[in-house]
Amino acid sequence: MKLATYKDGSRDGQLVVVSKDLTMAHYANGVATRLQQVLDDWNFLSPQLDDLYVSLNHGKARHAFSFDPKLCMAPLPRAYQWCDGSAFINHVELVRKARNAEVPASFYTDPLMYQGGSDDFLGPCDKALFASEDLGIDFEAEVAVITGDIAMGTDPQQALDGVRLLMLANDWSLRNLVPGELAKGFGFVQSKPATAFSPVAVTPDELGPAWSGGRVHLKLQSQWNGQRVGLCDAGNEMTFHFGELIAHIAKTRNLRAGAIVGSGTVSNKDWSHGYSCIAEKRAIETIESGSPQTEFMKFGDTIHIEMMGKDGPSIFGAIDQDVTPLHEAQTQASQD
Amino acid sequence: MKLATYKDGSRDGQLVVVSKDLTMAHYANGVATRLQQVLDDWNFLSPQLDDLYVSLNHGKARHAFSFDPKLCMAPLPRAYQWCDGSAFINHVELVRKARNAEVPASFYTDPLMYQGGSDDFLGPCDKALFASEDLGIDFEAEVAVITGDIAMGTDPQQALDGVRLLMLANDWSLRNLVPGELAKGFGFVQSKPATAFSPVAVTPDELGPAWSGGRVHLKLQSQWNGQRVGLCDAGNEMTFHFGELIAHIAKTRNLRAGAIVGSGTVSNKDWSHGYSCIAEKRAIETIESGSPQTEFMKFGDTIHIEMMGKDGPSIFGAIDQDVTPLHEAQTQASQD
Repeated sequence: MKLATYKDGSRDGQLVVVSKDLTMAHYANGVATRLQQVLDDWNFLSPQLDDLYVSLNHGKARHAFSFDPKLCMAPLPRAYQWCDGSAFINHVELVRKARNAEVPASFYTDPLMYQGGSDDFLGPCDKALFASEDLGIDFEAEVAVITGDIAMGTDPQQALDGVRLLMLANDWSLRNLVPGELAKGFGFVQSKPATAFSPVAVTPDELGPAWSGGRVHLKLQSQWNGQRVGLCDAGNEMTFHFGELIAHIAKTRNLRAGAIVGSGTVSNKDWSHGYSCIAEKRAIETIESGSPQTEFMKFGDTIHIEMMGKDGPSIFGAIDQDVTPLHEAQTQASQD
Repeated sequence: MKLATYKDGSRDGQLVVVSKDLTMAHYANGVATRLQQVLDDWNFLSPQLDDLYVSLNHGKARHAFSFDPKLCMAPLPRAYQWCDGSAFINHVELVRKARNAEVPASFYTDPLMYQGGSDDFLGPCDKALFASEDLGIDFEAEVAVITGDIAMGTDPQQALDGVRLLMLANDWSLRNLVPGELAKGFGFVQSKPATAFSPVAVTPDELGPAWSGGRVHLKLQSQWNGQRVGLCDAGNEMTFHFGELIAHIAKTRNLRAGAIVGSGTVSNKDWSHGYSCIAEKRAIETIESGSPQTEFMKFGDTIHIEMMGKDGPSIFGAIDQDVTPLHEAQTQASQD
């Protein structure tokens, strides 16, 4: 099943069911108006949405319309939790190697995760607004899951049963603010602005055998200004699978339905696969030549993030964002 | 106006208006059923709740009933953001001095804040569940605000206009997990379990002149196992006021209605005022005698946190929690 949230001027938007091939959609308001509502009562509501999904795929849903990702909010426009891992340890190794820092041994057994802001997510085609290019604007292409209720102390394998939906994420990062916040030790408040998510969230069965062992064994594509810069395997090299990430959070507290958990930047040891964030490209350049050559993003830059199934078509639809000056957006809003 | 959320078996509970003296309550369902709904549409709904509040205070609300804090969830049982400061720099100074670490100069101009989990808050009288005493169980008595929408780039003074409600918080901390997470630099995931909040959230006008300059100029009381251990001034020594904390978060992103922002442990330079968390007591002992004597909390311990107005009575009602073993709660649940 594939679900999206259409913009309707409200904070939570309107839940729509989207066809498997992402061409058609249908309002779900006969069942539920908002995705959080479905997550709160998953066992009762999701089978009803699935019926609609089957009808839609068979061309039998009465009020179907063409699906337009540009009209989408994030599947959950706001959530009660967004906790992001750094589950591809290769990413951590590269970034640390570039600054001559060791990776502590514990990093291979204890996931690195940060709690992110979850009150104001971006839709897949929303402009990404920044006050200045000097912040070190970077994309981060990731896979994320939305969970059901997970009880404190749940083990990694059980935690996997709590995965309700999967999405792609663009975890925007302000690299020039990261060192200061890392030094404070309290995590990221300013260096991780609003995160964007893919047009649709899909149930794990949509991935078929590619969803295995708590990992998505497919390639994540990143195009920066129209040029493909990354085609990274999101599966094998994910050091901690999603069950392990969820269980890490659940060690001392419950997770409640609708919690979003991210993989962190998808990263492969084989550099020929490219990169899912510019920081990594710069780390590689530093390792190779002593200093980074690639600059961070500029106003007007575009980023496109997408994942294709083994059989070809896009699974989640694409994240397609422009890097936009905050003052420009504010000026325009005041003229509207 | 004073608002609370009654347990009704649902995830978000039932909004009630509570009388100024905390003796009577009235369901708000003629206006709104959930507090988040009110925050989403504050200018339209809050005056209607205020009318009910006035009637209730005059003994003229038709279906009023006795208010019982034990039936309360947190005013927002789950929220889209919980971001907690360490705004009383004296607390930071003490803890650092005890481990012979300097306070960086930037800490006096740049607030220390962490993003917390907000999907599973505790009610004021809910048991606090922990897997083991070895985690280093500690309370943290704080003041917190709930905001309206705050735009990216809002300055501290404007940000204060966005404060909708105030509460008390008990930001449970697992001290023995803190050093490991601090070293990772990504903030607190496991060492900050579910936070508890006071029975009622109040509008700033309820504090009268005690709400001034973005600070609450009243004393915060902490009783551990029935003994008063802290009576700390929550006003003057708050290095960063709430507007500054909110503006810090808003530097690179919007805050949306219902974001909760905390002061961090209330702490005074004059040690005779006592402490609002055990870590601070242990820091003082270490400074004085070379090592901490006071142990962290044990199963069966109780904590009571409350704030009285200048004229006497409790403003927010009391947080009253028991430290409870997780396995005991789980066994009981399986027998229910």
